[in-house]
Amino acid sequence: MHSKNIPDVVRHPVSVTRTRRETRNGHRGAIVWLTGLSGSGKSTLAYSVEEVLHGCGFQTVVLDGDHLRHGLCRDLGFSPQDRRENIRRVGEVAKLFMEAGTIVLTAFISPYRADRENVRGLVGSGDFIEVYCNAPIEVCEARDPKGLYRKARLGQIAEFTGISSPYEVPYDPEIIVDSGAAEIGICVQRIIEEIAKRGICRFPQASRPAPR
Amino acid sequence: MHSKNIPDVVRHPVSVTRTRRETRNGHRGAIVWLTGLSGSGKSTLAYSVEEVLHGCGFQTVVLDGDHLRHGLCRDLGFSPQDRRENIRRVGEVAKLFMEAGTIVLTAFISPYRADRENVRGLVGSGDFIEVYCNAPIEVCEARDPKGLYRKARLGQIAEFTGISSPYEVPYDPEIIVDSGAAEIGICVQRIIEEIAKRGICRFPQASRPAPR
Repeated sequence: MHSKNIPDVVRHPVSVTRTRRETRNGHRGAIVWLTGLSGSGKSTLAYSVEEVLHGCGFQTVVLDGDHLRHGLCRDLGFSPQDRRENIRRVGEVAKLFMEAGTIVLTAFISPYRADRENVRGLVGSGDFIEVYCNAPIEVCEARDPKGLYRKARLGQIAEFTGISSPYEVPYDPEIIVDSGAAEIGICVQRIIEEIAKRGICRFPQASRPAPR
Repeated sequence: MHSKNIPDVVRHPVSVTRTRRETRNGHRGAIVWLTGLSGSGKSTLAYSVEEVLHGCGFQTVVLDGDHLRHGLCRDLGFSPQDRRENIRRVGEVAKLFMEAGTIVLTAFISPYRADRENVRGLVGSGDFIEVYCNAPIEVCEARDPKGLYRKARLGQIAEFTGISSPYEVPYDPEIIVDSGAAEIGICVQRIIEEIAKRGICRFPQASRPAPR
């Protein structure tokens, strides 16, 4: 019987390597991992950063909690165990895209520190940029773009992060953006600058400080 | 409580669309799905086709059974149910790459017709090219590149496709390659020609009939 930690499964040698893809693309692959409460601006930020990167000619993808829960992770709910498996799968997919030479932006609440650290551990140091979208719950709840806080307060959604399920603030993320108060353009620029500083890609001079 | 078929999960509007990515890349995204017995040449073919496509400047990725079973699908075994879930996840990941503008080559035994048809149904018609790697089990077993047939015959691996677990031959695949007898170059060329015929990408004249 095959065991689930399958010694019988042998990896095939790859000829189009990550390095060849990155050389072709003119930039490195990387994972920019946004974490924060529902309503803290993760998806908006991810798509805005992507717009800038795509505009500069880079290969990008956004992996978005809402999107993946309709597809890859649609068998999962919101229990601690399912949240862990959700983030594990997202981490593996992000790694596949990164190895294909893409700058990956992920937008998941990803409330547990250990799960985020597991993803960090999957890839090389320098490949993973954790961005804490720091917005007070009062601000997120006032925004409530999907009406979820209202439902959670009414008891219509259990295990809702920040209300009936914990959020573990990152100890030492690469970036903290004040996405509760700062303008989105400021937050986008902070992320773009970090990507540049780390040499993941080179921005043409003109487009550098131009995010909306 | 969130249900698992989550009405509360709302999709975020995307601004860097598939079309914008494809226009940038100069070719369409697509899924080339190789299916066949262990040892029928799926991975070798996938990596060889990728080498040609990458050489032409196209964005590509290979999703390989052996590779993914170390990562995204490492919680799964080889029971019918786990094989189904394995292929479901691979289909979802292939779709993500295709929507990111990539030509995806998948190399999975994917023994069940229904599972392959489910993946086909995930994407638009014309996005999915099923390639049946048609090699007789005697040939695959004689090759036995990973020593798996030997182990299966010795009873050391249960649920082994072709021996103790079924393989359902495709009824009407887009391509059948005679990967048991034909030279690899012939099989690669057949796939490249189909990709060209479907307008997924345009090959420079010189590189067209040049696969090894």
